[in-house]
Formats: sequence, structure tokens, C-alpha cells
Amino acid sequence: MRLSILTTGGTIDKTYNEFDGSLSNSRSVMEVILASLRLPDLFIRHQAVMKIDSLEMTLEHRMQILEAVRVAIPSSDAVVVIHGTDTLSETGDLLSEKLENLKVPVILTGAMRPYEFRNTDALQNVTETLIAARMLIPGVYVVMHNRVLPFPGVFKDRQSLTFRSND
Amino acid sequence: MRLSILTTGGTIDKTYNEFDGSLSNSRSVMEVILASLRLPDLFIRHQAVMKIDSLEMTLEHRMQILEAVRVAIPSSDAVVVIHGTDTLSETGDLLSEKLENLKVPVILTGAMRPYEFRNTDALQNVTETLIAARMLIPGVYVVMHNRVLPFPGVFKDRQSLTFRSND
Amino acid sequence: MRLSILTTGGTIDKTYNEFDGSLSNSRSVMEVILASLRLPDLFIRHQAVMKIDSLEMTLEHRMQILEAVRVAIPSSDAVVVIHGTDTLSETGDLLSEKLENLKVPVILTGAMRPYEFRNTDALQNVTETLIAARMLIPGVYVVMHNRVLPFPGVFKDRQSLTFRSND
Amino acid sequence: MRLSILTTGGTIDKTYNEFDGSLSNSRSVMEVILASLRLPDLFIRHQAVMKIDSLEMTLEHRMQILEAVRVAIPSSDAVVVIHGTDTLSETGDLLSEKLENLKVPVILTGAMRPYEFRNTDALQNVTETLIAARMLIPGVYVVMHNRVLPFPGVFKDRQSLTFRSND
Repeated sequence: MRLSILTTGGTIDKTYNEFDGSLSNSRSVMEVILASLRLPDLFIRHQAVMKIDSLEMTLEHRMQILEAVRVAIPSSDAVVVIHGTDTLSETGDLLSEKLENLKVPVILTGAMRPYEFRNTDALQNVTETLIAARMLIPGVYVVMHNRVLPFPGVFKDRQSLTFRSND
Repeated sequence: MRLSILTTGGTIDKTYNEFDGSLSNSRSVMEVILASLRLPDLFIRHQAVMKIDSLEMTLEHRMQILEAVRVAIPSSDAVVVIHGTDTLSETGDLLSEKLENLKVPVILTGAMRPYEFRNTDALQNVTETLIAARMLIPGVYVVMHNRVLPFPGVFKDRQSLTFRSND
Repeated sequence: MRLSILTTGGTIDKTYNEFDGSLSNSRSVMEVILASLRLPDLFIRHQAVMKIDSLEMTLEHRMQILEAVRVAIPSSDAVVVIHGTDTLSETGDLLSEKLENLKVPVILTGAMRPYEFRNTDALQNVTETLIAARMLIPGVYVVMHNRVLPFPGVFKDRQSLTFRSND
Repeated sequence: MRLSILTTGGTIDKTYNEFDGSLSNSRSVMEVILASLRLPDLFIRHQAVMKIDSLEMTLEHRMQILEAVRVAIPSSDAVVVIHGTDTLSETGDLLSEKLENLKVPVILTGAMRPYEFRNTDALQNVTETLIAARMLIPGVYVVMHNRVLPFPGVFKDRQSLTFRSND
């Protein structure tokens, strides 16, 4: 199975700077996460498309992600987009609208707590996404917190800090 | 979603005894694993069917597991069996043969390294199983190491320490 | 052995807020750290004196810490002050100057990376401090990163992110 | 500060073999432990003297440890011996009896639970030992569980699983 992972920054990839005490998107922790998992049959190509907080994403950024997904699709059995949760559903809606005749699943995921923290949900969400990539039919989804939700119609529930479907 | 988890012991549940330095199946770590995950929509019923190393399992033990699965099915949307890896495929073959007209997926999983160890694969395998339970069609499977393999025809590859299909 | 631990906030106690993505001093993680250690002979009294970033500390705050140390000394065999590293040496200098005829060691410590992070130095520094409290003669010290440095004459080396002595 | 660390095996260094499910002394985890600590001023020389369970130690083994300590002393400011807890006090008594005119502290430590386990006491004991090595006067000690106990007169309390002094 050939999987493209496109990282864009977001909470999951925020790292701590001991010099100034800040949390920021300066590098991706994806390789560390992948190295902690046993993935004997998975061929992964990881591309850092951008490194930003999703609150700073403009339409231009989202079009850049769309383009990166389009480029990745022909050589991939599934495409994963690691994304900040604050505007993940906007990017999901855009991908869902613009990607026609999809032949593979495109899955967005992220985390409510950065991977560098002990009680992060990052490892759970990435683990779920990597196996969902093997089972889902073509479409655009968010996979997080033991849920698989198809776009459009997904929103971040800011009370319970998880994603839900409109219906 | 209603999920029944039946634990039987196995490597995943081996715990360390500081008094004599032994590793054994004396209690299940399943509740600790579940508490570390974010599962907002999952209703779980956990039953400890037995607590043994799967090398010690007799046909009688496997019949007991089959019976517990049968009892769990009517009230569950999926059934998970936590099992030692050494004879997991024997139990999977039996379940696959005896469970006719399955209406829900029955998933076996376990670990090559006990959960109490830092570099365990237990958390990965349970996380994968809990989300696969939402996506799989009825049947008997092993879900482990980013793979979903249907019974019959699955074996433990003792060289690479993972499960593979015969075909 | 009776040990008083006075927490004041600082990097070690910064926790992540999933609602707004901020890192702040809202609660102390000291009880979690202590629960992870084996301390069969240690009687601990933990008091949260304040919960602030040490960059925000005024002289008034430091006088409040001095007062809390003075109150703790008569009933303690050692006093530990958990402190932000940015102005730890200012508080250490003040304690060293004002505490005369000390009968017990007073040890300041903290961390360069919050305890909630995987690669924190908090656990190391607290572990070192708790055992140094048994061995040091009366005086004011910082114990961190496998070093024991007496006040006055200690500064935070902002290049290598550790404490050093002037001499 | 120049520190010699002599490893001999013991519980702390037991590692899990996924092929046969056994726990054994096949390699030392000391380098992994040391890499997880911040030790800016410590110059360490690590020597694996043997790799055995301390229940299997004969007098010959203990004489070999004594000899390794003697060889290490002239170039070291402190010597640490990592040892199984079951017969640690026998080796400590021997070192205490045979090492005359000691000029540096010799510290024995180990763990009740192997380092590879999540809830190990190995990291605590090594952290304590490395800082005690800076503070102790010459002598032979066990440092473990926030205690510093001088030989002779130390025993393993098999009820509470820690070391105590006879007096």
C-alpha cells in the first residue's frame, strides 16, 4: 500500500522552544510518530506542504493543499493530510468540493494536544488514520477520536473538543 | 456504537511481578489502555473470559471463547477478542468456521510485546482494532500492525513477528 | 525526613489548554511527579504559594516566597522551592541574603521544559532535589541537571540553558 | 566530574525477547537511560563487567566486580555499580570490607522493575545515584528510592521491596 502524508503544521506538530518558552510550528514530528509504529506493509511518502497554525490559513493556503493532494493522488492508494483542527473542516469542504471522480480516500486528521505532550491524542489519530486508509472507499474524510466522518457536513465541536457531523 | 471486548490473557496482558521477577497473566490492562484513548462515541462492555498464555489454550478454552462471542453478538455492533499471538490463528479459524450468518465483525488482536513495556505494540493494535470495528463488514479478522486480515488463511510469521495471509 | 515543597509556578508547571492552545500556570503538576516516584521514607508537605511565570515576579512576590520559606523551616528537615528558571537566581540571592543562621538546606529547582512534555527535565530535577535534600548542609542552593550550586553567585546560562556558578 | 559506571546485569537491565517471550540480561540499557538525562558536567565511562541475574552470582563474580572497581578508582571521582537487588547487599558488604583507604564514593544501585517497563524505578535510582556521587564522602553505599545507606549493615526488605539499614 502506497500512502502519501502531507503535513501542514497545526497543533499536532507544535514543538516547545526552551529559549523563549513558546509553542510553534517549526518542524514536523511525523517521522517520530511513524517510527513508533509497526507498519510492515506500508510505503510512505511524507511531504511538508507548509508549517502553520490553521488559524492563519488563507484560501491561498488551502488551494496549495488541494494542489498537493491532486499531485499525490495518481501515485497513491490513499492520501493523508495532517491539519490544524481549527479550520480543518474548511479545508475538508474545499477538498470535497474540488476533487471530482476521486479514486482513493483522502483523510484529514490532526490533534487537540501537540504530539510532544504526554497525554496527546496525536498518536491515536495517526494510528486510526493509517488503518482507515486501507478500508475506506474513495471520498474525503476526517478520522479522529475513533470516528470516521465524511465531508461535507463536518464541524469541530468546540465544547467537547472533537469533530461531529451536522446530521 | 456498542463494542464487546473479550480478554483471554496473552502477551498483551502480561504484567511484571516485582516479588519474583516473573511476567504473567494475572490481570488485564485493558481498562488502562481504554482510559488512554479518546472514544467519545463508543460504548464498551469488557469481559475477562480467561487469563492465560495462548500456548496453554486447549480446544476447550477455544470453545469457551466461541461461546462468549456468541453470547456477546446479539447486543453488540462488533466483538473484539484480545488473544495471545501464538495460537491466535487457531482460535480465529475456529470462530470463522463455527460462527455462521455473522451480522457483525469479530476481530482478534493482541501484541508481540506486553502493554507494560515502553515499546509495546499493544496500544497501536487496540487503537486500530477499535476503529476497524466501525468499518469492517461482518466476518472474522485479525487486525494488527496496520493490517486487516480475514480468516481463514492467516498465520503468525515467526520470523518477522507479525501476521500474514496464506495467499 | 520531613520535606516542605513550595510551588510558585514556572515552566515546570505550565500546562496545555486545549480550548485556546495556550501554555500557562493554572495548576501544579507536583502531585503527579511525586506519585511517580518511590519515596518510602519521605514525609512531604506541599504548598502552592503562587502560580506565575517567574518573569512576572516582583520583589513583593519574592518577599512572599521568603516568608513562606521562613514559616516552613521550623517544622522541616529541608525546604524545596519550585521556581521558574528566568528569575530563579534573583530569588535565590534574596533567600541567601535574608535567611540567617539556617539550620536546614533550602533548595530551588525548576525545569527548562514543562513536565507535561515527553522530553522534560522536570522529573530529573525534582528527583535530584529530593535526594540532595538528604545530603546537603544548611544553605541555599539550586539543584538541576546533575549539579548542586550554592547561592550567591549562580546564574542561568541562556546559551546552554542550564545554571552555572560565577566562579 | 569523572564517573565510572560498571554494569553487571540485574533486573534494571532485563529486556524482553519477542521471539520467546522471555525477560533476560542480554544487553545494557544504561546508554538509553543516560541519553534521557541532562548531564552537562559529567564525564562518564561505562563498562559492562558482566550481564547476569544477581541470583546467579558466585563469589568469583563478586571478586571480579571488586577488581573492576579497584581498576576504575584511580581515574574516577566516583564509581557506580549497577547490580541486581537480590544479592546487592552481599556485593556491597564485600566491597566495603575489601576496599581500604577509599578516596571516592562507590555507589551500588539497581531497580525492582526493569527499565523497559513504564513504571520502572530504574530512572529514579540512576538519577539519584548520579547526583549522590557528587555529594557523598568516600565509602560504599546503596542509593535507591530516595535513600542513601552506607555499607555494611544494609539489606533488601523483601516485603516492601526496598533497601533498609539494620539499625
